[in-house]
Amino acid sequence: MQTLRINSSRIQKDFDELAQIGATGDGGVNRPTFSESHLAARAWFRARTLADGLEFRQDAAGNHSAILRAPHPDAKTLLLGSHLDSVPNGGRFDGALGVLAALEVLRTVKEAGLDLPVHLEAIDFTDEEGTLIGLMGSQALIGKLSPAELAKPRGGRAPFEEGLARAGLDEAAIPSAARSRESLVAFLEIHIEQGPRLQTSKCDIGIVTNIVGINANKLTFTGRADHAGTTPMDARRDAGLGAATLMLRAREEVMRDFQNCVINFGQISFSPGAYNIVPERAELAMEYRAPSQLELEMLKSRLIDIAQQTAQQLNLKLESEESGCVRATPCSLKVQDAFTAACTTLNLRATRLTSGAGHDTMSLAQICPAGMIFIPSTGGSHNPSEFARWEDCVNGANVLLQAALELAK
Amino acid sequence: MQTLRINSSRIQKDFDELAQIGATGDGGVNRPTFSESHLAARAWFRARTLADGLEFRQDAAGNHSAILRAPHPDAKTLLLGSHLDSVPNGGRFDGALGVLAALEVLRTVKEAGLDLPVHLEAIDFTDEEGTLIGLMGSQALIGKLSPAELAKPRGGRAPFEEGLARAGLDEAAIPSAARSRESLVAFLEIHIEQGPRLQTSKCDIGIVTNIVGINANKLTFTGRADHAGTTPMDARRDAGLGAATLMLRAREEVMRDFQNCVINFGQISFSPGAYNIVPERAELAMEYRAPSQLELEMLKSRLIDIAQQTAQQLNLKLESEESGCVRATPCSLKVQDAFTAACTTLNLRATRLTSGAGHDTMSLAQICPAGMIFIPSTGGSHNPSEFARWEDCVNGANVLLQAALELAK
Repeated sequence: MQTLRINSSRIQKDFDELAQIGATGDGGVNRPTFSESHLAARAWFRARTLADGLEFRQDAAGNHSAILRAPHPDAKTLLLGSHLDSVPNGGRFDGALGVLAALEVLRTVKEAGLDLPVHLEAIDFTDEEGTLIGLMGSQALIGKLSPAELAKPRGGRAPFEEGLARAGLDEAAIPSAARSRESLVAFLEIHIEQGPRLQTSKCDIGIVTNIVGINANKLTFTGRADHAGTTPMDARRDAGLGAATLMLRAREEVMRDFQNCVINFGQISFSPGAYNIVPERAELAMEYRAPSQLELEMLKSRLIDIAQQTAQQLNLKLESEESGCVRATPCSLKVQDAFTAACTTLNLRATRLTSGAGHDTMSLAQICPAGMIFIPSTGGSHNPSEFARWEDCVNGANVLLQAALELAK
Repeated sequence: MQTLRINSSRIQKDFDELAQIGATGDGGVNRPTFSESHLAARAWFRARTLADGLEFRQDAAGNHSAILRAPHPDAKTLLLGSHLDSVPNGGRFDGALGVLAALEVLRTVKEAGLDLPVHLEAIDFTDEEGTLIGLMGSQALIGKLSPAELAKPRGGRAPFEEGLARAGLDEAAIPSAARSRESLVAFLEIHIEQGPRLQTSKCDIGIVTNIVGINANKLTFTGRADHAGTTPMDARRDAGLGAATLMLRAREEVMRDFQNCVINFGQISFSPGAYNIVPERAELAMEYRAPSQLELEMLKSRLIDIAQQTAQQLNLKLESEESGCVRATPCSLKVQDAFTAACTTLNLRATRLTSGAGHDTMSLAQICPAGMIFIPSTGGSHNPSEFARWEDCVNGANVLLQAALELAK
């Protein structure tokens, strides 16, 4: 029997249409959650789903789904998908490719007239990028969107309330989007890599073994605001020097001793903040990621040591405030094996790797076998120049199809 | 003949009264130029001058003077003084001590009935600290306040115009405050050190040999905004790393090879400025000071080298914009000698040192013999905790008196 394939030109036409919605004119899209352009993209998905003869569903968290029902009404659901929202002025592949590939899998199965023992569902998760909350739709689906998170949305209450109103959603109903573990067979996601590893290793597909854990801290060094002309260099308690020293030492030790991990210092400020005043306070945003919870904890301990030693050596006070924490998530071995088998069937070169970014798969992995694949991409991430070759997109969609057929058995 | 001395309790009473004007309640004063509290301090000085039976004068730049006329109407003027304005929430000694000591010298000479061959003038210079322009009064007095500086005051046009209005000054008339070189014998200033060197060396008086030259640059490193999770550490072009590296290397080389110089990085920002994005741009305010113009130029050349090497090694672009430049100013040897003789007469331990901060003396040195002394101070500078022992203030005022008598000859 010939291997089933998705329809490359059909999904490409969809992809190009979708990329016009909220297009920024430089290849990117601007579709923050529940903005007018995001609502337009959602409406497009609904219309596309109905036009394809699939069932459309919106849940209480605003997640949109196309559903291809199994003949048996009590069948479980095999969930495929990603998200249609973007960061402000983001790229056209991030999320959108995963939603369209999932939809294309349903259309291909429907067209082939296959009767699967599971419902197939292609889902567009609400607010993955975090304009409002982050992973909002997938966290609601797994029943983990706490009242605390709804009370203090990352983007502020007013934008959250306004967004819900524009989308016609009821905040109080959001928790009812939760689904039971028993209802789901698995969750599969396809996404651009957003990094150079697949390109470097000349692989077609990256099978994600785990999604990094992330810790973020706001570190504050406090010294003394001295006159930058009258205070000898060795008599200063320069908080800025503490920040610079930590940045270099932390980077050096991470690269030497934690080669699977990354660290970033993305925000900094000195106060009082004048040319001629030695900084009294230096605030520094530190974020670090590790593939496993164990490595994350070891790295945390090392970084705290470095920061404390730096403060002590420079006679500074150090304060640290955790400002975000995501546990490392291993992907399902069963799903990884299905992806591997699919790559073998399709004669694609695959590698296993860690996802350095968070994805909806992190949520789903908490209640069902979940996993994801990456396709090669260039131009970085979260900007208009992110790019994937169409051939790689098609490869990814075919791997998704094969893995879905395998897991549907 | 007994050595003439100032009246310690009289000047202390004045000092305590003046420190109440704009007092912040923690030992400091808040008297930005032409604020209500600064205008009140100016009014106090005028009233005090008149009550002491001295002549009062205000020039077109708002400089206030107490004058003790010599018998001969064509006599030249020996100018003594400093400033009554403060930085926002500054200390009560900075500037105020110099004005009061100058006033006390006039009173002491008047009381002693000495007929000097020069007019003695105690001056309160307008806006030394730079709320509006910086060294405004002394620059106007030496005829160097250009229309360009009046057109682009450091603090902005609106605050400048509002300040002049509150003080009843006419912008167009400011240049007429200029005085001729021939009219001035010398200028003397006494000031707190604002640093720890006198205390460390256990000296009573610091005789300033020169006032540092200052260069300031805004440096911008530009790299690439990458995803902080998906981009390997060694594939980043992290502008923040450029800034941190420069800060540490520059400091190290200044301390090793330019021991008379200082450097400060007082402002910094990263953009886009998110925890999870590698900084694309890092803007850094660099200010450095050297005792002579030659050392300033050598240091400048070294710092540019370091910054360029750093940018090259990290694959970053570097831009540099000069944002302020003050030439190094040597103090008059004749004035230094008069201060030295005064210290000998008064049996005070003196040392020669460089002023790391700018002062009105820098302006006056351009048109007449000018010099200044420091007295020991603690608690840094430009903050409410700056402090000088009263005994040291009195010593300084007596040195000012003796040097004035010497130079008046």
